[in-house]
Amino acid sequence: MAGKVVLHYFNGRGKMESIRWLLTVAEVEFDEVFLTTREQYLKLLSDGDLMFQQVPLVKMDGMKLVQTKAILNYIAEKHNLHGKDLKDKLMVNTHSEGVMDLMEMIMMLPFAADVKTKLDNIQNKAKDRYLPVFEKALSGPIYLVGGRLSCADVQLLECTLMLEEKFADILAEFPNLKSFQGRMTSIPAVSRFLQPGSKRKPQPDGVYVKTIMEVFDIKLPFL
Amino acid sequence: MAGKVVLHYFNGRGKMESIRWLLTVAEVEFDEVFLTTREQYLKLLSDGDLMFQQVPLVKMDGMKLVQTKAILNYIAEKHNLHGKDLKDKLMVNTHSEGVMDLMEMIMMLPFAADVKTKLDNIQNKAKDRYLPVFEKALSGPIYLVGGRLSCADVQLLECTLMLEEKFADILAEFPNLKSFQGRMTSIPAVSRFLQPGSKRKPQPDGVYVKTIMEVFDIKLPFL
Repeated sequence: MAGKVVLHYFNGRGKMESIRWLLTVAEVEFDEVFLTTREQYLKLLSDGDLMFQQVPLVKMDGMKLVQTKAILNYIAEKHNLHGKDLKDKLMVNTHSEGVMDLMEMIMMLPFAADVKTKLDNIQNKAKDRYLPVFEKALSGPIYLVGGRLSCADVQLLECTLMLEEKFADILAEFPNLKSFQGRMTSIPAVSRFLQPGSKRKPQPDGVYVKTIMEVFDIKLPFL
Repeated sequence: MAGKVVLHYFNGRGKMESIRWLLTVAEVEFDEVFLTTREQYLKLLSDGDLMFQQVPLVKMDGMKLVQTKAILNYIAEKHNLHGKDLKDKLMVNTHSEGVMDLMEMIMMLPFAADVKTKLDNIQNKAKDRYLPVFEKALSGPIYLVGGRLSCADVQLLECTLMLEEKFADILAEFPNLKSFQGRMTSIPAVSRFLQPGSKRKPQPDGVYVKTIMEVFDIKLPFL
């Protein structure tokens, strides 16, 4: 009845990629409509599809979902990936917010003027502030919270893969995280998502950045 | 057993103010410890109190909570201020994320170089992108979601009051929001919180900014 899940976003990672990851792990099939022109965006606006004039937009369960974190929470709750009780949910959210803070820094890189400075800052923060927390949480337990898979694990996997694209050896000092990554990538749905031809998106390139600038009518650098 | 709730933050609004508001509406008493020196911050770090080296820190229910949104969700869930089912919770989170996006822009103003440009941008976005959504949601219903009070209402009240401090007439075109504000401020706990001498914090001043710079050892402007 509710029909297939449809994602409306750019043909790139951005804020949608964590949603693609979570749907994949929840084994929810989805289609994608890529925003490539300003006209498409204006049409979504005039149709009233974008509550706060922003994408991601996810059509699912008869609703038009916006706001990345609200969407992630909904999918996680619905598919038992959000902690079994109040305290586990708190810890899932806490870890998740930390991972998202780190991923957001990487996500904004293509729009920054001083990429080198920002890369150094990301590497330092990753090594000093974030990865030690997750490394410790995984010293024994195989998942971050409550002995079972949650959205925080999915986001952490996504984040470690993004970090390694930028800093190949960054997990060398974090053996528990490397093992975690190995376990997570052997989940069949994850393994398929990591194969060429899946709906996983590559690192942002010039076309991705140019498309966003045109669709939103903005000038760079804005950071 | 769990003892009193204790907030560790600067003596100012920042990211803690929404937590103060939510605890107030939930009628949870709290104490505050104000961060005024870098030594206090380093002590919290060396004690392992700050999971991601950041405040807010909220000690409650025998735990050390960090990450603002995780804390807000925990308090909201615990005190039935988070929607009665999956779909209401989604809508509470969606509204809440929108309000928080807008409040964050105002929160960062004291740290910006080009305040005038940023103020204009905030006013435009408030009038064009955010307030119309809430105005429409309140055309009939007295709360944003599901006919009952949620954390999104509490955050929206906080946000409208912040906006009026900057743009006195901004609600003139939004009569439903003005009525909502009137209803919300007549809740006894809210009414007390709005009185002088309560734990509500004033707008950020030079001392607040200087303290944050010293405690985190940062230079301005960083935006």
